Amino acid sequence: MKLICEGLDLSNAILKVIKAISSKTPSEILECIKLTAKGDYLTLLATDTEIAIEKTIRAEILEEGEALVHGKLFNELVKKLEEEQIELSLDGNFVKVKYGDSEGVIQTKPLDEFPQINKNINENSFTMSQKEFKELINMTAFSCSQDDSRPILKGCKMEVEDGNVVCVALDGFRLAVCKKELAHSTGNFSCIVPSRTLVEITRLLERDEEMVTVIIQKNMLMVEVSSTVLISRLLEGEYLNYKQIIPNEFLTVLRVSKNQLLQSIERAAIVARGMKNLVKIDIKEGNMNISANSELGKVDENIMINLEGKDVVIAFNSKYLTDLFRVIEDDFVYMYFNSSIAPCVIKPYQGDGYLYLILPIRINNN
Amino acid sequence: MKLICEGLDLSNAILKVIKAISSKTPSEILECIKLTAKGDYLTLLATDTEIAIEKTIRAEILEEGEALVHGKLFNELVKKLEEEQIELSLDGNFVKVKYGDSEGVIQTKPLDEFPQINKNINENSFTMSQKEFKELINMTAFSCSQDDSRPILKGCKMEVEDGNVVCVALDGFRLAVCKKELAHSTGNFSCIVPSRTLVEITRLLERDEEMVTVIIQKNMLMVEVSSTVLISRLLEGEYLNYKQIIPNEFLTVLRVSKNQLLQSIERAAIVARGMKNLVKIDIKEGNMNISANSELGKVDENIMINLEGKDVVIAFNSKYLTDLFRVIEDDFVYMYFNSSIAPCVIKPYQGDGYLYLILPIRINNN
Repeated sequence: MKLICEGLDLSNAILKVIKAISSKTPSEILECIKLTAKGDYLTLLATDTEIAIEKTIRAEILEEGEALVHGKLFNELVKKLEEEQIELSLDGNFVKVKYGDSEGVIQTKPLDEFPQINKNINENSFTMSQKEFKELINMTAFSCSQDDSRPILKGCKMEVEDGNVVCVALDGFRLAVCKKELAHSTGNFSCIVPSRTLVEITRLLERDEEMVTVIIQKNMLMVEVSSTVLISRLLEGEYLNYKQIIPNEFLTVLRVSKNQLLQSIERAAIVARGMKNLVKIDIKEGNMNISANSELGKVDENIMINLEGKDVVIAFNSKYLTDLFRVIEDDFVYMYFNSSIAPCVIKPYQGDGYLYLILPIRINNN
Repeated sequence: MKLICEGLDLSNAILKVIKAISSKTPSEILECIKLTAKGDYLTLLATDTEIAIEKTIRAEILEEGEALVHGKLFNELVKKLEEEQIELSLDGNFVKVKYGDSEGVIQTKPLDEFPQINKNINENSFTMSQKEFKELINMTAFSCSQDDSRPILKGCKMEVEDGNVVCVALDGFRLAVCKKELAHSTGNFSCIVPSRTLVEITRLLERDEEMVTVIIQKNMLMVEVSSTVLISRLLEGEYLNYKQIIPNEFLTVLRVSKNQLLQSIERAAIVARGMKNLVKIDIKEGNMNISANSELGKVDENIMINLEGKDVVIAFNSKYLTDLFRVIEDDFVYMYFNSSIAPCVIKPYQGDGYLYLILPIRINNN
């Protein structure tokens, strides 16, 4: 392997693929980036066996070949060579990095130990604008479970149906559903994508107005954006029938300013920390009272609302409220209740673009 | 105590004084901010007993008085009230924070346990531009000792003499000296200021072109900037006679591009991590070769220099070189050597504004 490329191109490419390397991998081989020089291109590839990211850049290839180098070390050195033209060459067990009158030399690792990545994925696909894909993920992925007790809940269910995609995340205490129109899809299908994969995909999306195509085959997913390819395993198993959880009828409906409510809950959350984040909401006569009380102090706030139906007193973990109100961009939302022990549902002022459901915390109504 | 003030003013004032609170204080009282309402002003004060910071803002005082509140909690609540007008009042053992239709309540702590701060400091002083004071500190304080074995070395010696101030820092392996002209001083004197105090002072300096006056009396220092007052203890004891350490004659003198050298050492430092940060410098025939070698890899760089005197091979801890070259703003510097085991001295291309000395690491010249 021997080639010449621009330091800045190489540095940017490393930054893309290095995201696939887990910071806590136990394997030396999975800390590496695979370099492949072929035709007029240098390809970089990194993987943690769950996600793989591959990036291709133009290079003057003097000799085709491959090499495996330590990702973090290679990144640090090349980051300091962004203004240089670089000659990369394989010299025995070392990759030589030549620039100007100087050079760096980095050990290589045995190539045959690096995982093979299957890029033959082409069965189903859907296409949408990058901006909408990012919104879809930002509005749901935070509700995925973080712990390993039910691994299937660490992913988002994505249902492609009749030209729409519905993305669902739930963790046993809350549910997030977001729906977007697709520019194109190959039919109706569904899959469960690890939330980490979805977040890494959103990081690749730098051009809001352009499209992104997600390709699915069996238990694999592939996305290509500006000559960066991300390949990920999907989660396998039965997802919950989330539609069963959502009540159809409510005794209380209210409309509230989303920003006012978010700010009130954020202030209440400061003292609620002293008491398991418990924030109490008392709804009556066109007023919503938000309060929290602990040994740290007290917060007691009032917000005007549009109320229909009966009064209700209910309590929540403040984090579940702030998480969802921070991603909603609407000025007003509708909140739906049945009682102090029944789930609360949040929907947009207009349309059915999203739905959130959160379970209350039982309190003594005094 | 009862008063009305703007949320943004109060929030900014808290951010100033909270820097005096140590994150690892063992004392609940030292986590507090003292509020004093008097005349037309609210004064906030925080201290860790070594440094105290006091900030005064305008307020409508309805009832004079004092209170002690938990700094971090008060900060978090008020940060979320920057757009509000706030009424603060003392109500038994609580401070009530009223805004709009809502309120927060925070516990107070017993006032009499808070340390008394003596502001009667006026014996000696020096005045210089804020920009030059910041340069003085940035160019020296990083060389102070970090460990407690010789506490006096955790401070900078500041010598005011004949209209100049010389700031000195050393840690047993390196020495930094920076000299600046003063706009005014009350005579010749010297003191040893904890480096943390100096860094906190630079953070208060927001107007480069304006002056700052540092007042010293016995073992105390005081600085006032835009109605923020910082008071600090000084370090007491004998400082080293640093002038004795600096050689007067050198066998090798060279001029080198500071940026080129810094970048080369930064790259060498990447592989040098594997070997106690050891970077080797080989100077001969108008060339400086910088190299590092460890199990991580090798870096080997060459820089053109202007050389006078004999060749020299010498090695350093890369950190000592990068630390000082990162604060020097000149394009070129002079480096002075005597041998591979004698200290290296770095001085400016023009003038005597700074001097750095670093000790080499002994290596086998092979």
